Amino acid sequence: MWGKQQIRVKYLVVVVCCLVCSVILNVYYHFKAKNEDERLESWEGSWSRAAAIEAEGVAAIRCSGHGRAYLDGWVVDDDDEGSSPVCECHSCYGGPDCSQFFPSCSANADGGDPLFLEPFWIERAASSAVVVAGWHRMSYQYSDESFISKQLEKHIRKLHSIVGNAVTQGRYIVFGTGSTQLLNAAVRALALPDDAHNYNASPPAPPFSVLATIPFYPVYELQSNLFHSVDFKFEGDTSSWKNSSDPASSKHVIEFITSPNNPDGQLHTAVLSGPNVKPIYDHAYYWPHFTAIPAPADADLMIFTLSKLTGHAGSRFGWSLIKDEVIYQRMIYYMTLSSMGVSRDSQLRVLKLLKVVLDKGGRDIFEFGHHTMRGRWQKLSNIISMSKRFSLQKIPPKYCNFFKKNREASPAYAWLKCERKEDKDCFEVLEAANITGRRGSMFYAGDRHVRLSLIRNQDDFDLLLHKLQSLVSEEDGPETI
Amino acid sequence: MWGKQQIRVKYLVVVVCCLVCSVILNVYYHFKAKNEDERLESWEGSWSRAAAIEAEGVAAIRCSGHGRAYLDGWVVDDDDEGSSPVCECHSCYGGPDCSQFFPSCSANADGGDPLFLEPFWIERAASSAVVVAGWHRMSYQYSDESFISKQLEKHIRKLHSIVGNAVTQGRYIVFGTGSTQLLNAAVRALALPDDAHNYNASPPAPPFSVLATIPFYPVYELQSNLFHSVDFKFEGDTSSWKNSSDPASSKHVIEFITSPNNPDGQLHTAVLSGPNVKPIYDHAYYWPHFTAIPAPADADLMIFTLSKLTGHAGSRFGWSLIKDEVIYQRMIYYMTLSSMGVSRDSQLRVLKLLKVVLDKGGRDIFEFGHHTMRGRWQKLSNIISMSKRFSLQKIPPKYCNFFKKNREASPAYAWLKCERKEDKDCFEVLEAANITGRRGSMFYAGDRHVRLSLIRNQDDFDLLLHKLQSLVSEEDGPETI
Repeated sequence: MWGKQQIRVKYLVVVVCCLVCSVILNVYYHFKAKNEDERLESWEGSWSRAAAIEAEGVAAIRCSGHGRAYLDGWVVDDDDEGSSPVCECHSCYGGPDCSQFFPSCSANADGGDPLFLEPFWIERAASSAVVVAGWHRMSYQYSDESFISKQLEKHIRKLHSIVGNAVTQGRYIVFGTGSTQLLNAAVRALALPDDAHNYNASPPAPPFSVLATIPFYPVYELQSNLFHSVDFKFEGDTSSWKNSSDPASSKHVIEFITSPNNPDGQLHTAVLSGPNVKPIYDHAYYWPHFTAIPAPADADLMIFTLSKLTGHAGSRFGWSLIKDEVIYQRMIYYMTLSSMGVSRDSQLRVLKLLKVVLDKGGRDIFEFGHHTMRGRWQKLSNIISMSKRFSLQKIPPKYCNFFKKNREASPAYAWLKCERKEDKDCFEVLEAANITGRRGSMFYAGDRHVRLSLIRNQDDFDLLLHKLQSLVSEEDGPETI
Repeated sequence: MWGKQQIRVKYLVVVVCCLVCSVILNVYYHFKAKNEDERLESWEGSWSRAAAIEAEGVAAIRCSGHGRAYLDGWVVDDDDEGSSPVCECHSCYGGPDCSQFFPSCSANADGGDPLFLEPFWIERAASSAVVVAGWHRMSYQYSDESFISKQLEKHIRKLHSIVGNAVTQGRYIVFGTGSTQLLNAAVRALALPDDAHNYNASPPAPPFSVLATIPFYPVYELQSNLFHSVDFKFEGDTSSWKNSSDPASSKHVIEFITSPNNPDGQLHTAVLSGPNVKPIYDHAYYWPHFTAIPAPADADLMIFTLSKLTGHAGSRFGWSLIKDEVIYQRMIYYMTLSSMGVSRDSQLRVLKLLKVVLDKGGRDIFEFGHHTMRGRWQKLSNIISMSKRFSLQKIPPKYCNFFKKNREASPAYAWLKCERKEDKDCFEVLEAANITGRRGSMFYAGDRHVRLSLIRNQDDFDLLLHKLQSLVSEEDGPETI
């Protein structure tokens, strides 16, 4: 009897112990679940959730690394509710997931789309995303009644001081819808009598001559022709003026200086000088991706753009650094009357992007940019070095104050020359080999030259190399393959 | 003995039952927790989370309903890392949380900030938010190589057909950085010989005269003066031309028609006619908020803007509907060379906003807009009706094809007139009563008139009413209080 009783008691004790443990586990689970419920509620109750899910859904669409789907992309059926955007494929790729490659298609080396920086931003998805609330900045004005975000201006000044590519002390800043809008804002502001405070002032006669040095960016001329102003007129290359006797004093001149130059990547300074010469420095490419930074630029009127700094050409954002207050006021007036300033949505996004750029003193983006562009230039140079038919511009090494070392070339564009006597139209020579560049004549340099873009996405660049490789290998020159 | 044993057995059974229940509960908790862990991980692992938390944090900053904090707002200390933006207060409010009211401050009835729509978007936080990925639309071009989002264009066409305020069939669409940029794009495109396909075409002599009908929006003249083109010149009021004998045939004319008109809210049609007259219809205010929609507008060149439709003036987005393909091509060329199109960031956001607008056939926003504007006009009219010193414009009731009923006035602006002989400067009369309007002379209508903005935020409008109330009550007219 005793034994049986003892056994029963033991059972009881064991079961009670199990019960106690189990209850403790219950209590633990209860509080854990309660806590997580609260966290989930706070997320599911948040107004940004639907937009986040939508954006992440689109970002997750697979396009085989040869394309991308966008929130505002074209959708499968005509009624877009519910249906998701389709892949937008790189040139020479197709199919629903961009996995199809068209080998016979032309390599696209035209245009200045700076997609070489896209991988940098995909790697930094979390730090570069922005959530825009429906009520964000509805007003025309910021709280200081301007059209310019002071936070963004502050970050731009910080960026220049870190990179050391421009003096911002004692400079005013004006934003533009891309540097494109600022080019004409600057010309318009300069093409007035020095003392004029408004645009009703009688213009000087003859009107200002707008000049640039061949080879130059065609927009300078096309824009002047478009606006067809009483006050200024594009009159071509500076050289004719340089050679004529003291032209500066006889005529009012606005000189565009693009440094590094588009198309050939050379660092330039003004060709003309004198009391009546007003220079505009276009520094779109004056970033460590593309050139050594020998010293901070400190001209009276300088123009920069986001497109070639972060690669966000689509955001249409540029800025100008201006020394003279009267010119600054005129440019502010121009921006007010031509578009009432720059999209506040773009300004918000640019602020977020620049915060990422400034992180770690800007080293990440400029090392990525320089590494990519330098690598591309080396690959291209190796191929062209095997050729007697083609040659590239020479860009001498220079000391870079940002990287604190001597730097070899890493230009945004190849300025290719056809050396053979019979290759008068270099563009057509390349076209025949399925390579689309941009005619030298578009830069007023004649058709022995072609500009090849090196800043496009990796697919475009790889295809360009491949087509050039076979073109060069077909030469009666040294065997390359 | 038996009894004791039975009791022990009962204990055992009870305890075992408890244990079983507890274990079942554990199993349940286990799977619940597992499931929620996964959901939380998916959220916490998402790249948009940090941006969402940041935006919601800023949105949660309390500004007493008299101001707002913004993601890109000014921050407490100079080093903005970590520190959050401060409240930006409405005019006449101050203090860290905008709770301080300055009664002696002037009522701001100047400017066209359409903040009356802000509450609509705050109510729709979840549906109107956008998450912009760091790599979103970096390119200059959409996949069709244009600067214009086809998705957005599709939604704009849908909007016009739902509202019935414009014919879009057989019309091309061009986007602008606000309608502001489109005004000059349109003038520039029209001020060419009919057959000209580019801007190098020799202009007609004498240049085109740009005209409008008093009272008119001053930007038409200021913009023409700013660009100071060889091809067109602003020459004031249409009336002088109407009265002179057949002016249209003798001269090339571009006529701006603002309908409803800014400042007085009247629906207008072209004053001039003839083979050499080219009208530009500015329909910025042709939405059910502000006017009856008697019929769809179907002019050859019409301009609309987001600012007065959704209230997002800061996004700088407008569009033009164009019948003639040559004019369309010229305007596309203008947009390309002046700014390379409109910010893709703005286009993405506008698409999201228009999806909310189109929800429920657009009834929500237009009922909100009309209800607000109608209520404000009634309150203002009641006060002015007590006055012999001031009068308001008369806007006759009209049948509205959108609301399918007769509609009373609900204009964006009051066009106030000082009736007393001695009140030659109506602006000063109001200034003396702490009300800041906009001088009638700015609209070329003389200083007996002042424009008062009714589309600003509720605080501005309430203060305007209060100051007008006391101004009117001080008259030697009928007792009002």
